[in-house]
Amino acid sequence: MCTPRVVESRLRVRYAETDAEGVVYYANHFVYMEVGRVNFFRALGLGRDYWDSSDFGIVIAEASCRYHAPARFDDLLVIRTWVEDVRRSSFAFAYEIVKDEDGCLLADGRTVQVLVNLRTMRPTRLPPEVYDALCAAAQSKH
Amino acid sequence: MCTPRVVESRLRVRYAETDAEGVVYYANHFVYMEVGRVNFFRALGLGRDYWDSSDFGIVIAEASCRYHAPARFDDLLVIRTWVEDVRRSSFAFAYEIVKDEDGCLLADGRTVQVLVNLRTMRPTRLPPEVYDALCAAAQSKH
Amino acid sequence: MCTPRVVESRLRVRYAETDAEGVVYYANHFVYMEVGRVNFFRALGLGRDYWDSSDFGIVIAEASCRYHAPARFDDLLVIRTWVEDVRRSSFAFAYEIVKDEDGCLLADGRTVQVLVNLRTMRPTRLPPEVYDALCAAAQSKH
Amino acid sequence: MCTPRVVESRLRVRYAETDAEGVVYYANHFVYMEVGRVNFFRALGLGRDYWDSSDFGIVIAEASCRYHAPARFDDLLVIRTWVEDVRRSSFAFAYEIVKDEDGCLLADGRTVQVLVNLRTMRPTRLPPEVYDALCAAAQSKH
Repeated sequence: MCTPRVVESRLRVRYAETDAEGVVYYANHFVYMEVGRVNFFRALGLGRDYWDSSDFGIVIAEASCRYHAPARFDDLLVIRTWVEDVRRSSFAFAYEIVKDEDGCLLADGRTVQVLVNLRTMRPTRLPPEVYDALCAAAQSKH
Repeated sequence: MCTPRVVESRLRVRYAETDAEGVVYYANHFVYMEVGRVNFFRALGLGRDYWDSSDFGIVIAEASCRYHAPARFDDLLVIRTWVEDVRRSSFAFAYEIVKDEDGCLLADGRTVQVLVNLRTMRPTRLPPEVYDALCAAAQSKH
Repeated sequence: MCTPRVVESRLRVRYAETDAEGVVYYANHFVYMEVGRVNFFRALGLGRDYWDSSDFGIVIAEASCRYHAPARFDDLLVIRTWVEDVRRSSFAFAYEIVKDEDGCLLADGRTVQVLVNLRTMRPTRLPPEVYDALCAAAQSKH
Repeated sequence: MCTPRVVESRLRVRYAETDAEGVVYYANHFVYMEVGRVNFFRALGLGRDYWDSSDFGIVIAEASCRYHAPARFDDLLVIRTWVEDVRRSSFAFAYEIVKDEDGCLLADGRTVQVLVNLRTMRPTRLPPEVYDALCAAAQSKH
C-alpha cells in the first residue's frame, strides 16, 4: 500500500510561546509547522544548502490549523509532516502536532507553498529534483 | 441591505515581524488578526474589562489565511474584521489585511472561536450580551 | 537647559506578547524598544525611505532592559525614546516603557547600534545627516 | 579549581526568528537564553514539575545581551548557561550563544531573576533546595 512518508520533528514548548491563558498562542502552531517543513526538506536532501545555491524561494500561499487540545509550557511535542499534494509549481504539506507523552492530537494543519523565482518573485515550475522528491515522498511504499 | 459591520484596525509592520525573505513571516498574520479581533470586541463594548469580570474564555478552534501579496517592514496595514457566523457556543470572524497606501489586499483569513467556561474549560453557551452583539454586528444595516 | 529630545510611541499589548504568567514576556520589551527606535528615526526624517536608498544598515551591538513592573494584555504603553550617546560609527538609544493609564514605569532599557556598510557588513562612519541629526536630538533645547 | 557548572542546550534557528536583514532578530537571543535557563534548571532537578508544585514564580528583573556575530536561518546553536550569582531572593545566569559548526561566539548575555511568592507577587527567600542547588552549580569542581 502507498502512504505518504511522514517525518517527525520533536520540540519543547518554550515559555515565549505561551500566552496569558497558559497555553501555546495559536499563531505559534504555524512556527511549529515550519520546523516540521524544514526538517522534512532536510530529510529529502533539500536542506538550506540546496535552497541557498538555487534561484528559488518558497512562498506560503495558504495556511490553516485546527486546534484540538492545548499545548503547555515544557510539553514535548511531535510534529508529523507529510506531502499532501504536488503540482506544477506548488505543493501542500499536512501536519499533525501531537503530545509526545500520551500521543494526544493537539492540532492538525496544512500549508500550500508556491515555488518562485527569486529574481522575479513569480511562480515557477518545480525543478525535477524537487518535484520527484516530493512525489516520491507523497507515495512512499510501507 | 444587510452587510456585516466591519471594524478597521491600523498597525505598522515591525522589523521583528519580518523574516529573512524581507517580508512579514506567515504566522504573524494571525497576530494581526488578533489585533483586529480585540478591537472588534472593544467596538462592541466587549473589551478586556468585560472578559476579566466574566467566567468565560475564548479558545481558537480553527484559523486559516490565504496570502496574496507580501507585507514589508514599516508598511501601514489595515485589518478589516467582521463577524461571519454566530452559533450557540462559537462564532467566526473573517479578516482582510490590506495595505493602507494603495488598498492592495495582502491576505484574507478566518478564525473560529469557542466560548469556554474558564473553570471547566468546556464549551459553554454564549451569554445573551455576547450573542446579541455578535448577531447585530453580523447583520448591520448600511 | 539642554536635555535630549524624547519621542513617544504608543502601543497596546497584544495577547501574542503575553506569557503563561499573564504578563508581557521579557523579550518583547526589546520589540517595543524597536518600535520606539523606528519612530524616533522617522521623527528625525530618517524613516524607511532614507535607509532603503542608502548603503547603510543598522546592527544592534548591545541591548539591556531592567524590569520594574509587569505589563499586561491590552495595556496601553508609552515608549519614551531618546539618544544617549553618539560616536563615530555607533550610537546609543535609551528607553522608558511607561503605562499610559497611570504613568507607572514598567521598564527602562538601552541599545547600542553600529552603522555598517551593507556590502561589507563592516562598521562605517555615520554620514553627516545621521550624525548631525542624532547629535542635535541628544542636546535639544527645551 | 572551582568553576561554575555549564549546561549546554542545542537548538536550530527557525525562519520565524530571522528578520529582513537575514539574521536572527535581536530580541530572539533572549528566547534562546530562556531555553538555556529552563534546561539548566531541569539539569538541577528543578524542572516544570518542581515549579508547578511550588508557590514560587520566577520574575526577570534584568536582561542584557552583547551581539558579536549574526546567527542565520538553520544554524545550529549551542546555548551555554551557568550561574553567576546567588543571593537571598535572586540569582543571575550568564550565557554564551555559540555557533556549533565552528565554535564562533555569536552573543553573550546575562539575566537576573527574582523569586516571588505567586500569591503576593512579592520577592521571597529562595527555598533551601533551590538556594543550595544554585550555589553548588556556581562552584562546581572540575
